[in-house]
Amino acid sequence: MIMKDLPTPALVIDSAVVDRNLSRMANYARQHGLALRPHTKTHKSRKLGARQIHSGAQGLAVAKVGEAEVMAEICDDLLIAYPTLDAPRTSRLARLAATKTIRVGIDSPEAAQALGAAARGADVAMGILVELDVGFGRTGVASPEAAWRLAEVVLQTKGLRLDGLMCYPGHVAQPSEAQAAPLREVTARLEAALAIWKQHGAQATIVSGGSTPTAFQSHLVPQYTEIRPGTYIFNDMNIVRGGWASLEDCAARIIATVVSNAVIGQVVIDAGTKTLTSDRCAPAPDSGHGYLVEYPDAVITKLTEEHGQIDIRNCNRPPKLGERVTVIPNHICPCVNLQDAAWWLEDGTPEPLPINARGKLS
Amino acid sequence: MIMKDLPTPALVIDSAVVDRNLSRMANYARQHGLALRPHTKTHKSRKLGARQIHSGAQGLAVAKVGEAEVMAEICDDLLIAYPTLDAPRTSRLARLAATKTIRVGIDSPEAAQALGAAARGADVAMGILVELDVGFGRTGVASPEAAWRLAEVVLQTKGLRLDGLMCYPGHVAQPSEAQAAPLREVTARLEAALAIWKQHGAQATIVSGGSTPTAFQSHLVPQYTEIRPGTYIFNDMNIVRGGWASLEDCAARIIATVVSNAVIGQVVIDAGTKTLTSDRCAPAPDSGHGYLVEYPDAVITKLTEEHGQIDIRNCNRPPKLGERVTVIPNHICPCVNLQDAAWWLEDGTPEPLPINARGKLS
Repeated sequence: MIMKDLPTPALVIDSAVVDRNLSRMANYARQHGLALRPHTKTHKSRKLGARQIHSGAQGLAVAKVGEAEVMAEICDDLLIAYPTLDAPRTSRLARLAATKTIRVGIDSPEAAQALGAAARGADVAMGILVELDVGFGRTGVASPEAAWRLAEVVLQTKGLRLDGLMCYPGHVAQPSEAQAAPLREVTARLEAALAIWKQHGAQATIVSGGSTPTAFQSHLVPQYTEIRPGTYIFNDMNIVRGGWASLEDCAARIIATVVSNAVIGQVVIDAGTKTLTSDRCAPAPDSGHGYLVEYPDAVITKLTEEHGQIDIRNCNRPPKLGERVTVIPNHICPCVNLQDAAWWLEDGTPEPLPINARGKLS
Repeated sequence: MIMKDLPTPALVIDSAVVDRNLSRMANYARQHGLALRPHTKTHKSRKLGARQIHSGAQGLAVAKVGEAEVMAEICDDLLIAYPTLDAPRTSRLARLAATKTIRVGIDSPEAAQALGAAARGADVAMGILVELDVGFGRTGVASPEAAWRLAEVVLQTKGLRLDGLMCYPGHVAQPSEAQAAPLREVTARLEAALAIWKQHGAQATIVSGGSTPTAFQSHLVPQYTEIRPGTYIFNDMNIVRGGWASLEDCAARIIATVVSNAVIGQVVIDAGTKTLTSDRCAPAPDSGHGYLVEYPDAVITKLTEEHGQIDIRNCNRPPKLGERVTVIPNHICPCVNLQDAAWWLEDGTPEPLPINARGKLS
């Protein structure tokens, strides 16, 4: 397959940019003595998980048990960074724990009990990180005191091993130079939680945190022992417009074809919500549905399922019918999740790259 | 598999509701002398395409060539309701046209030339519907005069057969009782286009229109010979809140598990944007990310990839950790497209239903 024959819309991933992104993060983590545990939700690819391990990651993080099962084929040390408490999930995790190091981030005694029961049933041990909410307000126990109460439940639950704390600073979305203040609050909460553990003689071997927007400021949170960035492998317009990476760092792009120019001032491409998703750009919600590389003055104003409507009134020359254009999506993770395979571009020749862990039921 | 053991998030489709939805539309079309050509983008399932044919549809509509290839296995008469002009698509369509009736809706001379060349190359004929924009402003030539100019190109292009007109009244989104006025405008445009065809002695055997919101008012557009509703097979909150169907008509629902209640006033379910998508409800953009059947006073306020955050402050009793809840999505079509398989529920036993035509590159 050569580039110009690719059927569109095509998700094309540039291997050189991926490798640069992986190295940069691995180097940063190494410099600061942080373990790197990339979140594989972004790529869901066995090959890319292995590439992350090869480039210096100590383990991988996943959101789903199905993803854990796929990544277990190439990694012995997995964190399920997701509150897991129902039987279809806990039983499968316990099976994985027979041969792999399996840790789960939880925020309820119910999860501890369910995971403990599954671990005992399979005669395995699972590591637990207590998730502490540090301000995002999604999951995680609400206070340092609540974190310790849950840690005590874990200590009392046979089959579980208390390994430490986990947090996700998803609310810290300022430009890097303005992140010191909110990260000080994250630090204060982790410090308060760890102080209680110390009082009780408990140890947090792992304190897992981080996101792609905050990744390169992780050294401002001295409690962290590991970070879990996900999007950094590809980057996207959320990351670029947030000021955390540049357009050149965007490794995964959609190649689309101009299919209509019948409406004045507009062209239509064959990438709609079933390719780009409806995710707005978080730092710039009115910037349209992605960035058109060849036509930076164009705005992708509206998506329907298979159509992307582009306002070209500010373009010097209009895109032609049949022309191929390149879109950097607002949010790459759900775009990858829509594809059975991406195209992996190395030495100019695209090869299919299976998205192994997409479409998993749980 | 029994319902309570389904891994979640699970897309469950109720066969009885599907059959009722299919019958209702087929009966309406029959009563009004309209051919029914359901758009398969909603279900992407061979089994459900066949069920539509069996219940009275004359043919099927698709958006992608990959979908056409799948549906050709169960249907001899396909409309690609999508402007198709690039070589990867036109060559595959020409191959299909060797054994099937293939029609394409187009809005440019470039598409006519590309399809004609592919048809001649494969020694087949393809039918063409000229797409006329009737107010949605997405695709379709801008005026009745432009429709005739494109029809002339088609007539002059060997390999193509001019079959008629196509339109998509996607902008007509009022409650049914208020649709008469905008549908009169659709009628006026089609009438003006057909008058020019008649002047030139050309015939439009097919005038294809319709959408789920306007489906049951299609008799107000006397030019229509066929309608192409898609969503009606399942319905969703777009259709319910638009007033075009009721909650009981929603055949496809997401079963999700409550995985966290750590944040006060909130629970989190395991259905985020990778299950429900970020599509807002078009008639009620502030109504949240879907309807929670068991907790109608709850609001799904925020989605991230695998988390759905639900405000439960108005609920009489809070959903419990581990409890399973039912979500009717805002827009069912892209949700189905995220699944490799749904669960088909007939006689109380869920069976896997492959979503055969999802994940197609073009």
